Amino acid sequence: MRMLKKLMFLAPLLLTATAFGQDEPPAEGTYEAFMAGSDAAMFTVNNLWILISAALVFIMHLGFSTVESGLCQKKNTVNILFKNVFIVCIGGLGYMAYGFNGMYPGWEEPFGKFWAMGTPITNTFYGDSAAVAANMTGEYADYTYWSDFIFQAMFAATAATIVSGAVAERVKLSSFMIYAAILVTFIYPITGSWEWGGGWLNGFGGAEGVDDTGQFIDFAGSSLVHAFGGFAALAAVLVLGPRRGKYSAEGTKPILPHNLPLAAIGVFLLFLGWFGFNGGSVLSADPQGVSRVFVTTGMAGFGGGLAAIFTSWIVLKKPDLSMALNGMLAGLVGITAGAGAITPYGAVVVGAIAGALVVLSVLFFDKIKIDDPVGAISVHGVCGIWGTLAVAIFGKEELAGEKISFMAQLIGTLSISAFAFACSFALFFILKMVMGVRVDEQEEAEGLDVAEHGSPAYAD
Amino acid sequence: MRMLKKLMFLAPLLLTATAFGQDEPPAEGTYEAFMAGSDAAMFTVNNLWILISAALVFIMHLGFSTVESGLCQKKNTVNILFKNVFIVCIGGLGYMAYGFNGMYPGWEEPFGKFWAMGTPITNTFYGDSAAVAANMTGEYADYTYWSDFIFQAMFAATAATIVSGAVAERVKLSSFMIYAAILVTFIYPITGSWEWGGGWLNGFGGAEGVDDTGQFIDFAGSSLVHAFGGFAALAAVLVLGPRRGKYSAEGTKPILPHNLPLAAIGVFLLFLGWFGFNGGSVLSADPQGVSRVFVTTGMAGFGGGLAAIFTSWIVLKKPDLSMALNGMLAGLVGITAGAGAITPYGAVVVGAIAGALVVLSVLFFDKIKIDDPVGAISVHGVCGIWGTLAVAIFGKEELAGEKISFMAQLIGTLSISAFAFACSFALFFILKMVMGVRVDEQEEAEGLDVAEHGSPAYAD
Amino acid sequence: MRMLKKLMFLAPLLLTATAFGQDEPPAEGTYEAFMAGSDAAMFTVNNLWILISAALVFIMHLGFSTVESGLCQKKNTVNILFKNVFIVCIGGLGYMAYGFNGMYPGWEEPFGKFWAMGTPITNTFYGDSAAVAANMTGEYADYTYWSDFIFQAMFAATAATIVSGAVAERVKLSSFMIYAAILVTFIYPITGSWEWGGGWLNGFGGAEGVDDTGQFIDFAGSSLVHAFGGFAALAAVLVLGPRRGKYSAEGTKPILPHNLPLAAIGVFLLFLGWFGFNGGSVLSADPQGVSRVFVTTGMAGFGGGLAAIFTSWIVLKKPDLSMALNGMLAGLVGITAGAGAITPYGAVVVGAIAGALVVLSVLFFDKIKIDDPVGAISVHGVCGIWGTLAVAIFGKEELAGEKISFMAQLIGTLSISAFAFACSFALFFILKMVMGVRVDEQEEAEGLDVAEHGSPAYAD
Repeated sequence: MRMLKKLMFLAPLLLTATAFGQDEPPAEGTYEAFMAGSDAAMFTVNNLWILISAALVFIMHLGFSTVESGLCQKKNTVNILFKNVFIVCIGGLGYMAYGFNGMYPGWEEPFGKFWAMGTPITNTFYGDSAAVAANMTGEYADYTYWSDFIFQAMFAATAATIVSGAVAERVKLSSFMIYAAILVTFIYPITGSWEWGGGWLNGFGGAEGVDDTGQFIDFAGSSLVHAFGGFAALAAVLVLGPRRGKYSAEGTKPILPHNLPLAAIGVFLLFLGWFGFNGGSVLSADPQGVSRVFVTTGMAGFGGGLAAIFTSWIVLKKPDLSMALNGMLAGLVGITAGAGAITPYGAVVVGAIAGALVVLSVLFFDKIKIDDPVGAISVHGVCGIWGTLAVAIFGKEELAGEKISFMAQLIGTLSISAFAFACSFALFFILKMVMGVRVDEQEEAEGLDVAEHGSPAYAD
Repeated sequence: MRMLKKLMFLAPLLLTATAFGQDEPPAEGTYEAFMAGSDAAMFTVNNLWILISAALVFIMHLGFSTVESGLCQKKNTVNILFKNVFIVCIGGLGYMAYGFNGMYPGWEEPFGKFWAMGTPITNTFYGDSAAVAANMTGEYADYTYWSDFIFQAMFAATAATIVSGAVAERVKLSSFMIYAAILVTFIYPITGSWEWGGGWLNGFGGAEGVDDTGQFIDFAGSSLVHAFGGFAALAAVLVLGPRRGKYSAEGTKPILPHNLPLAAIGVFLLFLGWFGFNGGSVLSADPQGVSRVFVTTGMAGFGGGLAAIFTSWIVLKKPDLSMALNGMLAGLVGITAGAGAITPYGAVVVGAIAGALVVLSVLFFDKIKIDDPVGAISVHGVCGIWGTLAVAIFGKEELAGEKISFMAQLIGTLSISAFAFACSFALFFILKMVMGVRVDEQEEAEGLDVAEHGSPAYAD
Repeated sequence: MRMLKKLMFLAPLLLTATAFGQDEPPAEGTYEAFMAGSDAAMFTVNNLWILISAALVFIMHLGFSTVESGLCQKKNTVNILFKNVFIVCIGGLGYMAYGFNGMYPGWEEPFGKFWAMGTPITNTFYGDSAAVAANMTGEYADYTYWSDFIFQAMFAATAATIVSGAVAERVKLSSFMIYAAILVTFIYPITGSWEWGGGWLNGFGGAEGVDDTGQFIDFAGSSLVHAFGGFAALAAVLVLGPRRGKYSAEGTKPILPHNLPLAAIGVFLLFLGWFGFNGGSVLSADPQGVSRVFVTTGMAGFGGGLAAIFTSWIVLKKPDLSMALNGMLAGLVGITAGAGAITPYGAVVVGAIAGALVVLSVLFFDKIKIDDPVGAISVHGVCGIWGTLAVAIFGKEELAGEKISFMAQLIGTLSISAFAFACSFALFFILKMVMGVRVDEQEEAEGLDVAEHGSPAYAD
């Protein structure tokens, strides 16, 4: 018999067993009894998939970091990486201290359904009480309380990260840190609660359940995460203004991405993470559900990439790598609302439309002088709305298991986008008044890395 | 009770349940009945592993992208990344529209077994019909139809990616795009069908089943994927010719890799992905099978790395990083055919021989003036053949579960390699005649990034 | 019916079945019988998680490679990557040939418990003997022998990798290769066996089981892996001396990191891998265990990042990216010993203290002129000790399932750190006497890439 680390870890169960006499079966209603029963294996695999999905969504933060730094100028790289490290840290901790319970409030009383006060997550699921058992077994969900929390926490931080890309290269670090902390902790959970937390959008279009008028459907967050982030970004950019020198009387000056391999690494990692983002949103390892979501997710990403390649080739007369990369992301954002309700071929079309749309949208925002260095408003905002509406166009009610309504999709996505825009605008505007949101001209010219961080990203 | 996204997703089952009255058990033969039964947990974990493997093989495409761009010159980086984005997109969609069903045709009639017409994948697995149930449960395989498709689709695109590295830095983009699309969609499934699709090589050496004369064995594709890609690459390079200035009257000019950290990122990501490439090819999460394959895969990669380190140190008189990196890949390619049939120590030897071989092979191809910027012909072609033959030398019949025959391995790997070479040569030659396959001298000197894409990979 | 690769792989079982007559149930005590039974699904998911964890720990080696190369100078990048490729290869193979059985010796006789002779791993687990069944099913552990080996092998190589960072930019390659091979193969398993192999520290503070005086607890290796590596690194740096020009009469010269995006990629990949490092150390997919470990691991990393951001901002007067990155790692190292015994909020505090500590520690070692280019001594050594002691401060006995004792933690971590320091010092000192451990002045100035490897990392 080999001594194993295992022995140490399993000690709690041994202790419990000892307390009751070594050979007695575990008491009914305990975690040990559940794990000895016939549902344990299924619960374990469901739970494991949620955890692996959390890890996959975590690595999206490296994807966001490298896409954003790759598409910006060399002189702002440290600043961008720093912002992203900060966001994932504050996002996780803020969600722990406030957001999770604000987003999934339970709504025990009828009051509101628009807003709930957050509270810190529970810290007491240990020992062998029945409460632990209920929260660690199928009574809570197909996964544990902790898995629920860590998966949703990894999601939460993505919203603020989306804004980071749009305001890059001129935003004042301290102001952005305050903005991002508030956005991710206090604002993201509000719109999140509307749908996933059982708020007014959940069952919108009917009563609590399935009815004749159709319901708002946002499977993994085309609106709740991506359009939220994209329109928060738009508001922030309007408050902030474009990078100096980008738009002038002589026309628009292209600012080149400083490291396209870095951007490509980011996009592929985001694509990888999306299998957890969408696949984990099945909220179990259900074979039919997860397999289909993998196919719709992958095919929409591929469709988006191809469509952006050809659209940009036609419009810009050259095969544009950053458009191809953004096209894959656009396809993924596009399918996020309907990954569970759209067929594989539908997914290709939804993704392809998103891929074409993102090219036109990037050019449009550049034309109207809204400066978004990484295309975040187009990728996440515009394609987030498109993806939400696409459920009504391409979704199958047999797959969704709900009546689908164009009006419900439209009202839902516009409500979320408008709320994100308004809150972001107000918050960033207040910060502008109080402490400023922009670095001064000299710092912007010199680059934020040396000016704010005292360190270049690259040296010999 | 917390409201969960889950409620939305599970609605189809609720609907079905409602249709039959809330409390009745699901009808026999339905998906719901299967998922309520005792095989459901095992099916779910098997299926999940195939999906996770698909995600791991997906990230190999980032590995290929970064290895190739890292080992080539700075001025062609955008072009390389663009090709790789295109390949994974067209690979996935082409496999959906044609390749999957061409590779796994069923061969219902005896005709052929050499070629089958592909068709689009099925799009109708939703609703609650018995057909869905059969395709989503153990009646089809240990995983769903969708998992089967997405896993195989991620594989398919790797073949064309291998060629991409060999023709880098001088190939004409549009011609390569057409070539890659045809290779991955129409040609790869043909040789794939010979073995994995139940064609003439499956059971080759005997009747349909296990017999006395031995069978062709290619566990995860040393021949079907790697030698296929490597010999397609060799043909393409012969049609294309070397990079200008590489070989001249004054001798061979070394062209330095522009970014070795990028190449190292790529190799480690490929190694990671290989755990899904080989591990997923067990086609279930069977503990004995997958655990052993993880060990053989890992140890062969390590053996390949060490052998290449020492071989290159002796031959080149210096510790060469790109040889060390290619050595790890060579070891992985080498074990791919026999990952299920070779013992862990056998795997070290197979990997080490591959690691030594790749060093000599790279030097050999350079000597005979076949210009392969990343060593793809050596890594995938030469070591793919070696790995296939190694099954006959190091494979254990108790592990393979089949009689092993050197002749079957030799005929199998040469057939696949020769077919890949011939098709690739013909296709690329026709493209050369019709539209040219090479950029002009000035574009090659300037670099494809600016010449074809109008954008450098790196800027300030 | 589709022909599948599966058919080939499952052939061993078919053969066995055939031998006994197609319809007879598998003989009791065989692997086939186990897999047909009711524990099979649970075993399969447990085993799968150990394998996925092994893959996650594997990718940490890419994390180490890129952190180290990113934080050092451009001119030594190839050398750093080469060392890391070598370490992971020799680490895996050395653990196979000696270390695994030296670390988990079984201690059948009472002699020792301080040291056991290693032997090669077993190579015979195939065929259908009862021995195979026992080692491939729950009789051995919740996972197979092969999964056990590959998971522990991936761990082993991390210890030598930690040293690599501290001695970077001036160590002689051949000497370091010998040092690393000996450290990982022969020394790491000794301290490993003390606790995880059932040696004198396992159950230290009492008898074999749980008793009144408390036990040494090191869940996933704050001491056994990180403090081991960190103090081995300290010894090596003392033998080696600082980089030339770093400390002079005029004061300390900062040597800038050459590529911070590369360092950021590394830290995020290490964070990702840590979910397998800690999560896999549950040694099963137990939902309560793994879910809680994911939360403590993630939150400690986030706490560490935030604390380092604010600590460095206060101390250095600027928001320092490399401190933020090292802070996340410090938090992760800090929680590694107590990931299973500390609550989520406890984890935030443990991580935050580690994050503050690492900033002060890096500055301290720089002040006393111990030159550690990547901060490995602080991150792994100092925070490894902190993490081990933190179990005694923040650990809950209900979670640990053991009595917790500050003295046991202190004695355990100091023993391991001191042993690692002493062995590393002796070994590196002998190498210094015999063959030298440092490159000459000119090579150091020129950079190891060109001087030792004949190749720059970056070119045009």
